[in-house]
Amino acid sequence: MAIGPRVYMDWNATAPLLDEARAAVLAGLDMMNPSSVHGEGRAARAALEKARRQVAALVGAEPAHVVFTSGATEAANTLLCDEYRMGRRPVGIGHVYLSAIEHPAIREGGRFPVDKISEIPVTHQGVADLDALKAFLASHDEASGMPLVALMAVNNETGVIQPVAEAAALVHARGGLLVVDAVQAAGRVPLDIATLGADFLILSSHKIGGPKGVGALVSRGEVLMPAPLVRGGGQEKGHRSGTENLAAILGFGAAAEVALAGLEGRMARIAALRDRLEAGLRIAAADVIIHGADVPRVANTCFFSLPGLKSETGQIAFDLEGVAVSAGSACSSGKVGESHVLAAMGCDPKLGALRISLGTSSNEADVERAVAAFVKIAGRRKATEAA
Amino acid sequence: MAIGPRVYMDWNATAPLLDEARAAVLAGLDMMNPSSVHGEGRAARAALEKARRQVAALVGAEPAHVVFTSGATEAANTLLCDEYRMGRRPVGIGHVYLSAIEHPAIREGGRFPVDKISEIPVTHQGVADLDALKAFLASHDEASGMPLVALMAVNNETGVIQPVAEAAALVHARGGLLVVDAVQAAGRVPLDIATLGADFLILSSHKIGGPKGVGALVSRGEVLMPAPLVRGGGQEKGHRSGTENLAAILGFGAAAEVALAGLEGRMARIAALRDRLEAGLRIAAADVIIHGADVPRVANTCFFSLPGLKSETGQIAFDLEGVAVSAGSACSSGKVGESHVLAAMGCDPKLGALRISLGTSSNEADVERAVAAFVKIAGRRKATEAA
Repeated sequence: MAIGPRVYMDWNATAPLLDEARAAVLAGLDMMNPSSVHGEGRAARAALEKARRQVAALVGAEPAHVVFTSGATEAANTLLCDEYRMGRRPVGIGHVYLSAIEHPAIREGGRFPVDKISEIPVTHQGVADLDALKAFLASHDEASGMPLVALMAVNNETGVIQPVAEAAALVHARGGLLVVDAVQAAGRVPLDIATLGADFLILSSHKIGGPKGVGALVSRGEVLMPAPLVRGGGQEKGHRSGTENLAAILGFGAAAEVALAGLEGRMARIAALRDRLEAGLRIAAADVIIHGADVPRVANTCFFSLPGLKSETGQIAFDLEGVAVSAGSACSSGKVGESHVLAAMGCDPKLGALRISLGTSSNEADVERAVAAFVKIAGRRKATEAA
Repeated sequence: MAIGPRVYMDWNATAPLLDEARAAVLAGLDMMNPSSVHGEGRAARAALEKARRQVAALVGAEPAHVVFTSGATEAANTLLCDEYRMGRRPVGIGHVYLSAIEHPAIREGGRFPVDKISEIPVTHQGVADLDALKAFLASHDEASGMPLVALMAVNNETGVIQPVAEAAALVHARGGLLVVDAVQAAGRVPLDIATLGADFLILSSHKIGGPKGVGALVSRGEVLMPAPLVRGGGQEKGHRSGTENLAAILGFGAAAEVALAGLEGRMARIAALRDRLEAGLRIAAADVIIHGADVPRVANTCFFSLPGLKSETGQIAFDLEGVAVSAGSACSSGKVGESHVLAAMGCDPKLGALRISLGTSSNEADVERAVAAFVKIAGRRKATEAA
């Protein structure tokens, strides 16, 4: 049985709410409609615009280029659009190229039909194969429209950092657009939209300690924008209609400000915890496989397989020990599917894998608890095998 | 100058947050991802399902038929879809018929091209013309697909109650679908999805005292559903992907429970306030026009015109007197446009109109303040005319 309070080690699924974000949400809850003309509406509008500046600063963008959405999934669906617009002029997108390890919000392909979607493979360490991207772009049919490429900055399961700037150079050389899902990168690595070369970034509030239910698409310019997915009252300059989710947006802004401040020191501390965790896993079971360990990863994520331990069994076993971990991404309705990321990396997806992800308030005691749980779980596996 | 604290009379734009909703939001803010399998995830899931039951109860629906969205606008865009699905089988919609007074979230036509949208006219009192609907349905080309009709339960500007059940009978006789925007009806008139005959209802949390950023589409059955607008991780049984906005959903659930309880007594009290307000306006200016006064309206809304008083001028004047009212619906970026509702009712939209909308915490003192402000504003108009 579990000893002591529960340990939360699933920060890539959602991060506990930061105090700063809670305070901002609370202030926002009592504000009125930011689109109203009266004094109450204008006060709400001013708060909304402050949050826009905070989110823009996190990625080095212009505040005017931040469009708030209901989350990263909606932002992805908005951007994966076969018709962009330059002012009123439609600009067609002929084909979309997605890395094989993108989040389902991207992999579903948004508004593209299946025959206009191609998958960019990844290496065994989980890095997008740029030679494959280059080949795709070389054979892209320009007459069909522009190419649109989606490559995440950091994979949500492995934590592996993707070669975004290099991909951007290839995409732009072919006159294409690059959409970068920066959900798991934000607050973990320095992000600058221009340096990355992204045309669009996707952000999520609840992965950086803000509330759920809000995200953003951030553009480098504002000349070329996707046809809106959600139309109506014309909020967000017409790019995303619907009364703004003010409280959540203010919380997102506050979380973005915290995420930006002291990023390096915070991640160095978390990296040390993660290294300690991984050393513990290796000592407990010499055959543990830590995915992506040989390539650059964000500091907080450890995605590992233990031969003979299924994802679901492992996750439940950790849960019973009071440690919340995940089997890849948080899927719908609690089912544990096989990881498409593991499969794309050329691993047998039946191998199973578990993800331990840390965050701001993770500490050494948490790591000790996780290692102790793993020791027991790995020990039981040996006993089963011996029997 | 304004005397005393400000008076909020723009409840149709957004309602102040209920204490019950605030408590539910606060509880939800510290919960984790409802799609996670661990204990934290399961606790979040249980809370989410309780909110689903609360929202379903407000409209007499099955909890399983509630799909949470980021708001009514997203729900409208999801439902105005040219491809519905019966299981995996696509069911085409040939044409969409919208009343001329629908909210912009409906009027924009969702995923329908302009040539597949027709507008149902309304009477001078702002009631949808069912003879016109009947004629549209008679000439509907069945070979193109089913007809889809959208008729709001209560208009957001006038408060006029629409003949939904009668429209439902016409629509169903032609084998069509009826989408009912019940945003302004919820919590103000009894709503039962079966009695209304709606195939789908649209709800918004922040109009009933819940937080902004969440709404729902509620279906009468679950056999025929629109192709999802937001795709990804497969949340909400695949009808709406994206990590659930848990805190807001819990707040919505709590607000729905409050809205359902004691509805009659609450609305009788508000109706008395509104009648007193309108009597005051008529005494102050005999030529004031109260729109929809001769047909059934919800109890909380007064939409009026004063010849010679422009919408924008009137709204600013009330604001300076410390009374927050609105010029029709809360539009994007604070601009006051001409009312499409007024135009559809055959009034000169240049006439201008103001909306005073009341709610749970409105009281006699608020009404006195609004009438006093109107007396001053109407008086100035006379002075200007005399000069």
